[in-house]
Amino acid sequence: MSLQYAECIEACYDCAAACDYCAASCLKEEDPGMMRDCIRLDMQCANLCRLAAQFMAMGSTWAKSVCQLCAEICEECGKTCRQHPMDHCQKCADACLRCAKLCRDMA
Amino acid sequence: MSLQYAECIEACYDCAAACDYCAASCLKEEDPGMMRDCIRLDMQCANLCRLAAQFMAMGSTWAKSVCQLCAEICEECGKTCRQHPMDHCQKCADACLRCAKLCRDMA
Amino acid sequence: MSLQYAECIEACYDCAAACDYCAASCLKEEDPGMMRDCIRLDMQCANLCRLAAQFMAMGSTWAKSVCQLCAEICEECGKTCRQHPMDHCQKCADACLRCAKLCRDMA
Amino acid sequence: MSLQYAECIEACYDCAAACDYCAASCLKEEDPGMMRDCIRLDMQCANLCRLAAQFMAMGSTWAKSVCQLCAEICEECGKTCRQHPMDHCQKCADACLRCAKLCRDMA
Repeated sequence: MSLQYAECIEACYDCAAACDYCAASCLKEEDPGMMRDCIRLDMQCANLCRLAAQFMAMGSTWAKSVCQLCAEICEECGKTCRQHPMDHCQKCADACLRCAKLCRDMA
Repeated sequence: MSLQYAECIEACYDCAAACDYCAASCLKEEDPGMMRDCIRLDMQCANLCRLAAQFMAMGSTWAKSVCQLCAEICEECGKTCRQHPMDHCQKCADACLRCAKLCRDMA
Repeated sequence: MSLQYAECIEACYDCAAACDYCAASCLKEEDPGMMRDCIRLDMQCANLCRLAAQFMAMGSTWAKSVCQLCAEICEECGKTCRQHPMDHCQKCADACLRCAKLCRDMA
Repeated sequence: MSLQYAECIEACYDCAAACDYCAASCLKEEDPGMMRDCIRLDMQCANLCRLAAQFMAMGSTWAKSVCQLCAEICEECGKTCRQHPMDHCQKCADACLRCAKLCRDMA
């Protein structure tokens, strides 16, 4: 797409998909009690990423503010996921930290 | 991403971004009255595409039902956008019709 | 509000809030492994309820189809929550089953 | 509901419904060109209100930050709607300004 912020929008949606998948996968783990923070953050991160992408695509005056907040949550979610060895958590951490970086650059 | 349905998830998010951008662009046109249906459908299509992507990424039992509905709205939105010569409408039509096809295959 | 479908819109939003709260509370329980299905359904139900409310408030052609789907998920989520004695689950079950009924009537 | 922030959550959802209805109604007006800003803000305000409500219901660490941002957009949307005499705009302005106040108190 030739949208302004196209790379950041894509990173937000990649992050949302990784978080949704990670949350669902964490819930299938033998001990979901270990994954509480991960799941809770995934749920918030996914919905905020989707909102950030909408605001950017619409060229909203508040896109920067939403991206700033998005960067904070993505960073927290990425750090939390990084602590777990599972593939879904590591991939989610990658997606979150990439999104955090692009949102921070954008904001 | 190695997610199941990865291609369809990506198509949904591409479509959401194209719809958000198209809605915002239609509102800037000289005569938004011409674009009413376009804007109204863009708003619904974008949010439904985001939901469909979430349900697929989570491996939801209802992913197919949501995608079926998503395919219908995408098709209507794509046909409506196709009637306008503006670049944002033509690109939105492309994204909608691609998403409609993939959602239909998936459902 | 004098919106058409006002009662069903309100039930959808009540249900979304009850599901969000229930998911977050389930994650704090001593054994979240017992609550897997509950959390997974809460996450889907909350977002679908929000979409259904949007479609109704906009007077969308697809409001009935979205409400039909919403009724199905609410019912499943309500039944699942009903099996757990915690207050957040019982209240969520009440909200889900009320929303399921109103969505079904509407669709 | 006995949720913490229950009043603010309800105000957010009332505001989202009023914005969705206002956007759809503006698009039906004889001259939607007059209503551009209104529609554009309604679209952003509705989705941000829904996110704020989710974050509050989940007891998120970021609920205050999201509500702060929500208050800003609600205020802008409320002021813009207030300028139009139509009933849907006046009711939307009421809902936006009430939500802005409660979100500001909460944040």
